[in-house]
Amino acid sequence: MPMSGYDAIVLGHGSGGRLSHELLTSLFLPALGQGSELAREDQAVLPMPGEGRLAVTTDSFVVHPLVFPGGDIGSLSVHGTVNDLAVGGARPLYITASFILEEGLSTSLLRRIVESMRRACEAVPVRLVAGDTKVVDRGKADGVFITTTGVGLVPDGVELSAANARPGDRVLVSGPLGDHGIAILAARQGIELETALESDSAPLNGLVLDMLAVSRRIRCMRDPTRGGLSSALNEIAASSNVGISLLETSLPLRPEVRGACELLGLDPLYVACEGRLVAIVAEEDAQRVLGAMRGHPQGREAAVVGRVTGARPGVVTLESSIGGSRIVALLSGEQLPRIC
Amino acid sequence: MPMSGYDAIVLGHGSGGRLSHELLTSLFLPALGQGSELAREDQAVLPMPGEGRLAVTTDSFVVHPLVFPGGDIGSLSVHGTVNDLAVGGARPLYITASFILEEGLSTSLLRRIVESMRRACEAVPVRLVAGDTKVVDRGKADGVFITTTGVGLVPDGVELSAANARPGDRVLVSGPLGDHGIAILAARQGIELETALESDSAPLNGLVLDMLAVSRRIRCMRDPTRGGLSSALNEIAASSNVGISLLETSLPLRPEVRGACELLGLDPLYVACEGRLVAIVAEEDAQRVLGAMRGHPQGREAAVVGRVTGARPGVVTLESSIGGSRIVALLSGEQLPRIC
Repeated sequence: MPMSGYDAIVLGHGSGGRLSHELLTSLFLPALGQGSELAREDQAVLPMPGEGRLAVTTDSFVVHPLVFPGGDIGSLSVHGTVNDLAVGGARPLYITASFILEEGLSTSLLRRIVESMRRACEAVPVRLVAGDTKVVDRGKADGVFITTTGVGLVPDGVELSAANARPGDRVLVSGPLGDHGIAILAARQGIELETALESDSAPLNGLVLDMLAVSRRIRCMRDPTRGGLSSALNEIAASSNVGISLLETSLPLRPEVRGACELLGLDPLYVACEGRLVAIVAEEDAQRVLGAMRGHPQGREAAVVGRVTGARPGVVTLESSIGGSRIVALLSGEQLPRIC
Repeated sequence: MPMSGYDAIVLGHGSGGRLSHELLTSLFLPALGQGSELAREDQAVLPMPGEGRLAVTTDSFVVHPLVFPGGDIGSLSVHGTVNDLAVGGARPLYITASFILEEGLSTSLLRRIVESMRRACEAVPVRLVAGDTKVVDRGKADGVFITTTGVGLVPDGVELSAANARPGDRVLVSGPLGDHGIAILAARQGIELETALESDSAPLNGLVLDMLAVSRRIRCMRDPTRGGLSSALNEIAASSNVGISLLETSLPLRPEVRGACELLGLDPLYVACEGRLVAIVAEEDAQRVLGAMRGHPQGREAAVVGRVTGARPGVVTLESSIGGSRIVALLSGEQLPRIC
């Protein structure tokens, strides 16, 4: 149902006046299913979390298209920020959301996106505590951009860092790579895949909790989003001053992702996931952590895909199925713009 | 100095690969004057603040033009979020910044904006702990949008709320109204004012600290940004179920703001400030708080501009110099789009 006769966003919705108030009370608050707490003050005042340290992370989302198989910009903006907290070992507590709306955006599409955020927050769970909305003139944005910021609690004793990897450690991934990037690409270009590929967009905090419960020797975790597994592992290799060697045959890839990559000349090591993590785990705990991952819905297809070495510090290599080895460098240029 | 030969942003700067890394290490980190801590992990892990409660706030900034007399989108994005913390009685601790860049943006302009953010953070002071950068194709944004999120500490005993105003309380503002909105408008339209009017964009946390030090009967504070003093006071009147009566002759207005408003048919009560606050203070403490405000550089021209009444709950009125009274309603439509 449009608000007060508005079926599209107008500049006045960003005025700070009557229309802003209407947008908040007739769209955002009902879609978020919350009382008036979000509306009343310029800041949320919240109880101090318990023992531990604070984790803080922020991300803007500019994905195109706004709705795609397996998700939309709303759920993605929650998952992306929750996952950046989770891979640091933090329990997500609070999230904020700021919207940049383009004049002319359909209010029913906006409502759908905000409702999707609410469901995503409930599933984590994480509490949406503050928000903002700006409107820019038509042609100065692209529908809606969302920036989310997460605040979490890192329990005492959890010390994950990209600088912690050591030779001998194993490299684990939680599931098939590249589903998100290829699903977005297919949706954008109207490419028909053999089967209906969906984005892997999902919250990883539950999976991380199960992993941390069985091992204190998880060195670090990353969610391989933009730049894919390659970026995540290159960062770890550089920060820890170690080499990382991947085994091509062990990489979990769905046939439709493998096929699309071959067809389009893409390397799946560079394609984004939004519901997977890569973990560096001490060799002696690798199987136990793998077991914990496979016992969680987000880790059913987890696999050990490589190991950390002392050779070639800072370099990631891929051992191919026919015995060759190539360097997996940081992505040059841009493969797939605006996948998140 | 352009980065590696790039004098403008390209899509690859948002890839998560090599160019993203270069943008971070050759522009953002040097301009922010920080070490590598911002770069290494997906989340900042920070010491838990001391006693009190957490305050969290977020805002997107889409101001046009990006640079204006008295500031730019960078300093504005720091002041806006710091002030939303400050008016809640919170001491700013941490801030995050997420950038949406349009392909083609000048890297030297971006560097200038980021350096301006650094100076603004240092002046508060507040620590920039996390960031993100996305790039969208040309024509899908407008130069740069910045979203900042602030985390602050509300000391025990500080309980400010828009619901706390009571009949008899006084309404104080910290300085002349509307400088920011009129400065932006003049810059955008190329209007020549008689004197060089600058935005009032400034951090208010120091002023708030001085005010709280002299009174425990400050009911609430607001920074009158979008929608101006009218929006701030209408929110308070509605939340507290009180009337608010302003005295027109007591409103501090610079002659050039008064003149521009008369010329353009704008009402200064609806024009944004970005470095002013309005406070509702118990009658018996009003003069003491006013004195504290006038003793601070951000409050030299502070004034008592009205009072809270029991009549007409939820309604803000303006008593004119010739004895008439009119209702100051929430802004209908939009006076000045994209002023923040």
